[in-house]
Amino acid sequence: MKLLRVGTAGAERPALLDAEGVLRDLSGVVPDIDGALLADDEALARIRAAARELPVLDPAGLRIGPPLGRIGKIVCIGLNYHDHARETGAEPPAEPVVFFKAPDTVVGPNDTVLVPRGSTKTDWEVELAVVIGRTARYVESAEAALGHVAGYAVAHDVSEREFQIERGGTWDKGKNCETFNPLGPWLVTADEVPDPQNLSLRLWVNGELKQHGTTADQIFPVGEVVRYVSQFMTLYPGDVINTGTPAGVALGQPEPKPFLRPGDVVELEVEGLGRQRQELKSA
Amino acid sequence: MKLLRVGTAGAERPALLDAEGVLRDLSGVVPDIDGALLADDEALARIRAAARELPVLDPAGLRIGPPLGRIGKIVCIGLNYHDHARETGAEPPAEPVVFFKAPDTVVGPNDTVLVPRGSTKTDWEVELAVVIGRTARYVESAEAALGHVAGYAVAHDVSEREFQIERGGTWDKGKNCETFNPLGPWLVTADEVPDPQNLSLRLWVNGELKQHGTTADQIFPVGEVVRYVSQFMTLYPGDVINTGTPAGVALGQPEPKPFLRPGDVVELEVEGLGRQRQELKSA
Repeated sequence: MKLLRVGTAGAERPALLDAEGVLRDLSGVVPDIDGALLADDEALARIRAAARELPVLDPAGLRIGPPLGRIGKIVCIGLNYHDHARETGAEPPAEPVVFFKAPDTVVGPNDTVLVPRGSTKTDWEVELAVVIGRTARYVESAEAALGHVAGYAVAHDVSEREFQIERGGTWDKGKNCETFNPLGPWLVTADEVPDPQNLSLRLWVNGELKQHGTTADQIFPVGEVVRYVSQFMTLYPGDVINTGTPAGVALGQPEPKPFLRPGDVVELEVEGLGRQRQELKSA
Repeated sequence: MKLLRVGTAGAERPALLDAEGVLRDLSGVVPDIDGALLADDEALARIRAAARELPVLDPAGLRIGPPLGRIGKIVCIGLNYHDHARETGAEPPAEPVVFFKAPDTVVGPNDTVLVPRGSTKTDWEVELAVVIGRTARYVESAEAALGHVAGYAVAHDVSEREFQIERGGTWDKGKNCETFNPLGPWLVTADEVPDPQNLSLRLWVNGELKQHGTTADQIFPVGEVVRYVSQFMTLYPGDVINTGTPAGVALGQPEPKPFLRPGDVVELEVEGLGRQRQELKSA
């Protein structure tokens, strides 16, 4: 299933994009798309059963919000593609690099992204986001870990490289600016993504292709990431993991690096998970 | 005012400790102690006006939960005391070091703290926590920043040093284990903390005093921390900042460093903000 949330920011209603691409209203069936729903097999079955009878929504002029409400935490994996590690001059990490984005950085897939005040190094990162559906705590194998995944979505892990790298301390400082995590358009349930390690990811800036990778190049695949993270913290339904970005970010380009500026337009997609489009503006 | 939340984990009710130390039930006046309440001057005034007529609660056998529900994010400041920077062998940072704890690490002040599986370096850190009451975004001065603070609380920033420092990547990996952020007992409103830079902090392990510092030793005082953080991310009502720990952590001791083990008891307090007591158990 493709689950989504549509409407004004902060007042989104749950919806479903059916197999024919028709947008349908879920608000009569469930209150929201969130961790509680993803952990509730019965409610998910109710949605599946009702899908073809749900009221049709007119998508014209309707904003798409992030496909998940009440996100608990967003765990991010750094340097998780061989080609991206190479372009940044980093050794492939021996174990996953973990940092955080706050849930309040999440916006809809086509919402405005703000270039922070004082920023000269705002960068793009297309990523495969994993949404947790079952509590994961000391999971024993990568295979078992995949059973804790409710679904997948496109994430844009917007990053300010000066804040991230040159301002002391950890990466979090350059990863948590307002609007820095567009998510969606859909949450695609795991049953429709049979192989998360075989998805192409692409990102364009002002129409020019900048990133074109595949999750086959991930150093730590999705199951291993979930298993690994669950040794250090408990993952709950409604938590998100941004699993890293392939090569092609501005940071990896020759000088002068083409960092984002107000007026730029970024488009990105992950195979089967939909497409985002953001215009950059000044904060 | 001293605001708190009492009852079973996940089903706490709001309460107030009045000027005479009597515990009173707030659940007839407000639904919870959270960011929405702290941003609502009228609701806070209603609590003040009603304080003496509120039903009295019997504290016997009543669990104290964290004093804040629906926490948005927890921003942590590292190496923010001169004496702690010295003991870890670090230079005092030129600007605040920022990392994150997930809100799901928060437990009540006297709840069990779990030593993670595989941990040999679980460490303690008594901290002054700042609770945000008004949205802070690009705040211009440290003085103005203090106006965004709703109140203060005791926080225990439990830390696993191997996970934090020796496992690659950022500190977040050693800061986000289950139960790693006891908070409370109370949220003391800012009007009752006239000088946040003159509070003593103390922590004992099995009755032995390990940390005894003062917020006067903070490298970046509370107002400056809020101002600084607001340049990189927006702080919302209900967000928390853990402002760092003074000297005396296990990491700063000679070998063999006395890291925490199941069965240990940690007690900690910040002047005027109450006292915590946790027993350590295995995860």
